[in-house]
Amino acid sequence: MTATLIDGKAFAAKMRARVADEVARVKAAGIVPGLAVVLVGEDPASAVYVRNKGKQTLEVGMESFEHKLPIDTSEADLLDLIATLNADPAVHGILCQLPVPDHIDADKVLAAIDPAKDVDGFHVSNVGLLATGQKAMVPCTPLGCLMMLRDLHGSLSGMDAVVVGRSNIVGKPMAQLLLRDSCTVTIAHSRTKNIEDVVRRADIVVAAVGRPEMVTGDWIKPGATVIDVGINRIGAGLKDDGSPKTRLVGDCHFESCAAVAGAITPVPGGVGPMTIACLLANTLTACCRANGLAEPEGLTA
Amino acid sequence: MTATLIDGKAFAAKMRARVADEVARVKAAGIVPGLAVVLVGEDPASAVYVRNKGKQTLEVGMESFEHKLPIDTSEADLLDLIATLNADPAVHGILCQLPVPDHIDADKVLAAIDPAKDVDGFHVSNVGLLATGQKAMVPCTPLGCLMMLRDLHGSLSGMDAVVVGRSNIVGKPMAQLLLRDSCTVTIAHSRTKNIEDVVRRADIVVAAVGRPEMVTGDWIKPGATVIDVGINRIGAGLKDDGSPKTRLVGDCHFESCAAVAGAITPVPGGVGPMTIACLLANTLTACCRANGLAEPEGLTA
Ligand SMILES: NC(=O)c1ccc[n+]([C@@H]2O[C@H](COP(=O)([O-])OP(=O)(O)OC[C@H]3O[C@@H](n4cnc5c(N)ncnc54)[C@H](OP(=O)(O)O)[C@@H]3O)[C@@H](O)[C@H]2O)c1
Ligand SMILES: NC(=O)c1ccc[n+]([C@@H]2O[C@H](COP(=O)([O-])OP(=O)(O)OC[C@H]3O[C@@H](n4cnc5c(N)ncnc54)[C@H](OP(=O)(O)O)[C@@H]3O)[C@@H](O)[C@H]2O)c1
Repeated sequence: MTATLIDGKAFAAKMRARVADEVARVKAAGIVPGLAVVLVGEDPASAVYVRNKGKQTLEVGMESFEHKLPIDTSEADLLDLIATLNADPAVHGILCQLPVPDHIDADKVLAAIDPAKDVDGFHVSNVGLLATGQKAMVPCTPLGCLMMLRDLHGSLSGMDAVVVGRSNIVGKPMAQLLLRDSCTVTIAHSRTKNIEDVVRRADIVVAAVGRPEMVTGDWIKPGATVIDVGINRIGAGLKDDGSPKTRLVGDCHFESCAAVAGAITPVPGGVGPMTIACLLANTLTACCRANGLAEPEGLTA
Repeated sequence: MTATLIDGKAFAAKMRARVADEVARVKAAGIVPGLAVVLVGEDPASAVYVRNKGKQTLEVGMESFEHKLPIDTSEADLLDLIATLNADPAVHGILCQLPVPDHIDADKVLAAIDPAKDVDGFHVSNVGLLATGQKAMVPCTPLGCLMMLRDLHGSLSGMDAVVVGRSNIVGKPMAQLLLRDSCTVTIAHSRTKNIEDVVRRADIVVAAVGRPEMVTGDWIKPGATVIDVGINRIGAGLKDDGSPKTRLVGDCHFESCAAVAGAITPVPGGVGPMTIACLLANTLTACCRANGLAEPEGLTA
């Protein structure tokens, strides 16, 4: 391995410490930033996420409001709760954990969240603000990637960036952020031809595909920076007791990519931990904007 | 010259005829599509645009509402007019001709237009809807480019597209539209390095830069399709009476590009005429959506 390891875990810890400092400053002005997380149903993975978010929210000194609703909650009741949270001045950020059960229209729920409190950055107004270069709430995962890239490179201006994946939550907002930082941006996806050649041109590769270890070292230009957003659980042989073992891998094949890249994020411990850190940063930013306080620098795009 | 000439003027005429047919159908249902155009001040170029828009609106059988306001109109009065138009059921499309005088905040005006009537597609909600792949009002100039590309190629899926320029009104929405049609999309701009090499990879080049004849034939891959959005007036020697002559050129050097490209739009007569045709199409689409009528096919993205 020749690549520098980008330690997302350490970076996220530093970011949370920074947020905690700023929260203390805001509290001194008499305001306590608050994040409300809404979870409908009992999806175990979602429950873990929500628990982690709540824990880290408290750790940085913010208030955490958890709303766990039964799986048969009606759409109308959920929208009522969102309306209440929109109107609550103690709540500066609102996040509805996805997926929601099938009888609830997720788009409708996202659209109901006050854009100023939309710390996930999924509301169409925030998407539009980001796309037109205005002040927005920026989706957490791509924001985390951007933070790491800026930390590594300083200015990204003029770099060739290739984003693999065009989802609304990762690929497309990532492309917008890189464009805003003046990269030449290419967006690749499942219909892209000769994708290896496209990726091989990149100074910065962001992989957000959901295909275990798809991007291999021979796709990477020597010295390029590789940001692996993927989180995939794959089989890894058997445990001593004969039961199946699994492990987490990214969308990039780590060993072969690390042998060629200049810098790379590992999975786990790369992009993942940055996502919640950026959620906390977004909540703080939303709180400052709502109260006309100076926004902390370097915590948003 | 080896390239096929893409005749935007003829295409736009066909499109207007199509819109006129559909307007007749809508009128038979008792509804008259209406477009309101607001012009503040007396900028001569804007006055010409507004006159053309009004004329073509009437020609396809729609109602045209022109609001010409004096240059010293206050922002509040303009916003009042927009509110009136938003509430008027006879108005399905609202367009405020830019630029507005300096004492008026253009962003505020655009934000005040009901997104459902925003036939320019500049409202952040429409930008966000387009970016997330939902039903939107799509900016007219890039929509016109997309129409011509679809007409020429059928499916664009898997083609390499390079958009030169990243403005909110042309470059960025163009990139979104090409991505939605499953091109691999690269966005280049003034910070792009080795831009000739970037453009030379493209099956589709869209130039929206505002630099006369910047893109030359040696930047073009043989057989590529070149869409020239640029409209630049340059000097062209002297008239017989010794006064300066001017002519319109695009952002591409026509002769050298046409010698290499597979197809190319001329300037004038390429992208330009499509813009108003798409404005009329958007107004019809907005009218159908507002009245729960079936949307005509092939007139939006
Ligand atoms: N670290 C974090 O906090 C975090 C957060 C969110 C997501 N993730 C992970 O990131 C990955 C992507 O998530 P997502 O939500 O963006 O996924 P998604 O919505 O499924 O989108 C995947 C994208 O990858 C493209 N794709 C699929 N197969 C491809 C192939 N063979 N070649 C090229 N492109 C291909 C798809 O193209 P088409 O559009 O053409 O289908 C699509 O645009 C997942 O592993 C997810 O678990 C991590
Ligand atoms: N046909 C029509 O109906 C129609 C409609 C609208 C516009 N237009 C024409 O289209 C052209 C573009 O309009 P616009 O409003 O998009 O212009 P704009 O807002 O001025 O944007 C120009 C874009 O070109 C980029 N650029 C400037 N110099 C460049 C260079 N040397 N190399 C690469 N990129 C460069 C800029 O990059 P940075 O962002 O890095 O500065 C910017 O993104 C103009 O000629 C305009 O008249 C025609």
